[in-house]
Amino acid sequence: MSNPENKTITTTSTIGVFDSGFGGLTVLRALLNHMPHARFAFIGDTARLPYGSKSQRTIARYAAQSARFLVNEQGAEFLVIACNTASALALDAIKEAVPVPVLGVIEPGAEAARAASRTGDVLVIATDATVQSHAYAAACGTRGLRALEKACPLLVPLVEEGWTDTADVTRGSAAQAASAPPQVAVTAEVIRIYLNELNAEAAALGMNPDTLVLGCTHYPLLRSLIERAVPPGMRVIDSAESAAETAVRLFGQQDSVALPTAPQSLRCFATDSVEKFERLGSRFLGWPVGKVELVDLGG
Amino acid sequence: MSNPENKTITTTSTIGVFDSGFGGLTVLRALLNHMPHARFAFIGDTARLPYGSKSQRTIARYAAQSARFLVNEQGAEFLVIACNTASALALDAIKEAVPVPVLGVIEPGAEAARAASRTGDVLVIATDATVQSHAYAAACGTRGLRALEKACPLLVPLVEEGWTDTADVTRGSAAQAASAPPQVAVTAEVIRIYLNELNAEAAALGMNPDTLVLGCTHYPLLRSLIERAVPPGMRVIDSAESAAETAVRLFGQQDSVALPTAPQSLRCFATDSVEKFERLGSRFLGWPVGKVELVDLGG
Repeated sequence: MSNPENKTITTTSTIGVFDSGFGGLTVLRALLNHMPHARFAFIGDTARLPYGSKSQRTIARYAAQSARFLVNEQGAEFLVIACNTASALALDAIKEAVPVPVLGVIEPGAEAARAASRTGDVLVIATDATVQSHAYAAACGTRGLRALEKACPLLVPLVEEGWTDTADVTRGSAAQAASAPPQVAVTAEVIRIYLNELNAEAAALGMNPDTLVLGCTHYPLLRSLIERAVPPGMRVIDSAESAAETAVRLFGQQDSVALPTAPQSLRCFATDSVEKFERLGSRFLGWPVGKVELVDLGG
Repeated sequence: MSNPENKTITTTSTIGVFDSGFGGLTVLRALLNHMPHARFAFIGDTARLPYGSKSQRTIARYAAQSARFLVNEQGAEFLVIACNTASALALDAIKEAVPVPVLGVIEPGAEAARAASRTGDVLVIATDATVQSHAYAAACGTRGLRALEKACPLLVPLVEEGWTDTADVTRGSAAQAASAPPQVAVTAEVIRIYLNELNAEAAALGMNPDTLVLGCTHYPLLRSLIERAVPPGMRVIDSAESAAETAVRLFGQQDSVALPTAPQSLRCFATDSVEKFERLGSRFLGWPVGKVELVDLGG
């Protein structure tokens, strides 16, 4: 229906960004860093999150409603699906629902993995629904990579509970407490258990993975803990950052600015729990998200 | 609108049981134990779970839809709201939506706490929405108890991930592995962190709590881990069991049978993710849930 390559972002263009919750604010943060002059409209379908445990039929219906809101009511000329689950299960449904270019996070993540991997063997951690879709395995497969995927359902609630390392919340500061509090130790142990299981499974399959893709927009807030848990030399790919870089290449001119800079034009919407969005969202965006507007998509 | 005390369960009565997911199967399990001859219809609104992070307005709307389904389409003559969040936030909305007696889990839990506590100081652990409603504090307050509530958002995903102690899944068998696997150790540590925070807060308020209410239908699957984490002598109250006992007192004759016994007449419905319901639900019910029927409530 649409070819992203035909369009360019202007200063009056609105980029619509969609997520099931506010994890996609990590993608928006990367987009803001690369395209500070664009206008952004973000919607989190917080009334119906998490998508990760829902069926494809339901996810496609929900995602199409949010996409129409961004295009028809907010005038978005481009959409970034800042949600791995919706990208995996609903990208075609979204493209059919709206007449503008649509970019998901799966293909950029797989492309970054291709660029990073020397052995051709890649690990992916994501939500249950993303893994069951095997969207990353398929996207990696078309690039000549073997991908082994694992669902890590506890990582999203751990991030939302704030049991994260300070370094991951303060825009990548290297400063770090000498001894982690017990909450962070729990998260580190959960990551260790998941990655041990994943590496053991990869070894049993005769794989030699050298790259790990963070296939969920919550996971960048666990990045330093994950980097400390992977085997030496393994590259960690953040699909949020990869998607933002792809968006710039497709839609906009690279416009590098000194960070941090405040968002120029950003409206945030949520279908529920506006207060929670405002409170937690700032950790994902790296800025106060400001006033979040409540919308009813009829669900 | 209705007075539960005027009705009695007959062998042809259908009891409708509602939850946002399948955690409420722990309540159904207790009901089946007490009323094996009744017919049961259970619906889990799995398309829209978890309710625990949603607003009251949304929860009330969703819960009323499920209640109408049970009464209008399944012929339920009594409803048990086997969901603490819906009981806390939507009981009045449900009572207005259907012309049959409705029992929630909050009042039975508070009543059991009153019977158990000597000091009059009670702790409650629950989801975020249940805690923010302060429904337990109110229900305890009318019984002369002081209640301190704490949200424990990680416990539901830990149960759903299956990181539970074997003893809690196999119908309370005392048998237990000599060394817990690392997954169970994580859950035990999370419980320890939450209860330490709660006990410290209680002490700071000058409270002397001797009773802990499990204010979420997932928590019975953590019961032995929780009992090992509470201070010596503290009573642990399971609101699922308390609600079932109250239901028997209000609706039915006590009909004690030797356990285990298979459900006589049970239909299970879900609004999404039927496969996950069938797979995980059996751990909550203590029986295979059998075929789960998909229904669309229009959300």
